[in-house]
Amino acid sequence: MSNAADAAKAAAAHPFDRAVALESIPDGRLRGRTNESYWNMISPFGGMTAAMVLNAILQKPERQGDPVALTVNFAAPIQAGEFFVEARMARANRSTQHWAVTIVQGTTPDVVVNAIAIFGVRRPTWGDTEAVRPSAPDPEASRRFQPTMPMRWPAMYDVRYARVSNDNTDSLTHTWIRDAEPRNVDCLSLTAYCDTFAPRIFFRRPLLVPVGTVSLNIYYHVSAEDLAHHGSAPVFGVAHGQVNRKGYGDQHAQLWGQENTLLATTHQMLWYKE
Amino acid sequence: MSNAADAAKAAAAHPFDRAVALESIPDGRLRGRTNESYWNMISPFGGMTAAMVLNAILQKPERQGDPVALTVNFAAPIQAGEFFVEARMARANRSTQHWAVTIVQGTTPDVVVNAIAIFGVRRPTWGDTEAVRPSAPDPEASRRFQPTMPMRWPAMYDVRYARVSNDNTDSLTHTWIRDAEPRNVDCLSLTAYCDTFAPRIFFRRPLLVPVGTVSLNIYYHVSAEDLAHHGSAPVFGVAHGQVNRKGYGDQHAQLWGQENTLLATTHQMLWYKE
Repeated sequence: MSNAADAAKAAAAHPFDRAVALESIPDGRLRGRTNESYWNMISPFGGMTAAMVLNAILQKPERQGDPVALTVNFAAPIQAGEFFVEARMARANRSTQHWAVTIVQGTTPDVVVNAIAIFGVRRPTWGDTEAVRPSAPDPEASRRFQPTMPMRWPAMYDVRYARVSNDNTDSLTHTWIRDAEPRNVDCLSLTAYCDTFAPRIFFRRPLLVPVGTVSLNIYYHVSAEDLAHHGSAPVFGVAHGQVNRKGYGDQHAQLWGQENTLLATTHQMLWYKE
Repeated sequence: MSNAADAAKAAAAHPFDRAVALESIPDGRLRGRTNESYWNMISPFGGMTAAMVLNAILQKPERQGDPVALTVNFAAPIQAGEFFVEARMARANRSTQHWAVTIVQGTTPDVVVNAIAIFGVRRPTWGDTEAVRPSAPDPEASRRFQPTMPMRWPAMYDVRYARVSNDNTDSLTHTWIRDAEPRNVDCLSLTAYCDTFAPRIFFRRPLLVPVGTVSLNIYYHVSAEDLAHHGSAPVFGVAHGQVNRKGYGDQHAQLWGQENTLLATTHQMLWYKE
């Protein structure tokens, strides 16, 4: 933070905004710091890391438009403390920008995150939503997620299960997702929401094995302006896995907003042991 | 090709192998050339471009393991002729490698493809396939795809529709996919198959509008060794779209092999006009 006013603003900000903040440094990179409140088992919550990748691009003065596609590959666990983000525009066309983003850490320095993104200017066109939002009980009638493992980040969210199989029959879940301390949804928080879905393997297998996301992919289906109308209401998530095989498994999810608007779709590949 | 023997081998090779070939040059990059047979409307077939990105990594002597995840962002139309591929290993762990790949063209040179990938060594583990392969008529009973637009690449494939809606009701298709000239399926051809699914918007809307893939994402669920058992049988593809809105739409697909093995899952974001 550059001065006392900024520091006061940060102190008043939502915990998510404080955690996702990045500071521009003279060499063109951005400096960030891991946040204890959004800590996972051995590294930060992946949704926070993905939001930081997006935030690095959003802070670049040459950025135009809104996120269209983001892929974040987790190359190594981010260690507690400082890290640096390098966001480089690889190509720009009239209405589209292509970005390459890395997060590095340590004296070498080592790449811990390898990411690419597309930003675009959205214009009115014909449209349709073929996916159908399933009906679900209200958030008030849904059970809040209580992690059994020592992770801090789930406490920063209010995730409620509207549908879950309790006998390993299937991995389909319906969840209501919002920040525990209410915050208006924007591209950054929506990005983090995309990684709030528990690894599907836990719904298929009684055994708890080490597991971690290796690649997170997000397609954004609304502009920042559209999203501004959402407010702080919960987002409705539909998540499902397709396969686990030889140490890798997938999952995909839809994130629905108000009035059956499909805000984002997301896919991830996870590594698991045994 | 470095000598007459290689040249003879290339002449005898399958057209796909000739098209996907890349030559190492002294500066560490690889040189490729667009192939007329795999030409789309104004640039190469995106599946061929994605296969070339993968091939660049496969040709690197330090590459270990098999593809786990690949994201290819199409930054600008590749022009007919020569191009250069730069594949850089961003990070390697014990059993995982992270790669960044760009394709550049022209004197500047300009980035036309911006891609990242994960390779991994696959080990036996617990596994399950939750996705269910739909039943379908045999390839012989399915109608072969005949493009109505002037594209060359579809003739290089034998794509047959086992299910398609003819009245814009839905975008769900079942297709049998193989190379027109039979070729054993490997990671490269499977990658190309992932882009053989027609843009879903054409199944939802009578109007033909300009459309193009901006981002292609592939999760590989089998090792190269597993895939070697598949042979040249057709792969069965299940593709579906979820949303089209303000110039961008998505689609996802499953690629099934013999004995109900889910070989790959793929997602893409497309740009469309009007």
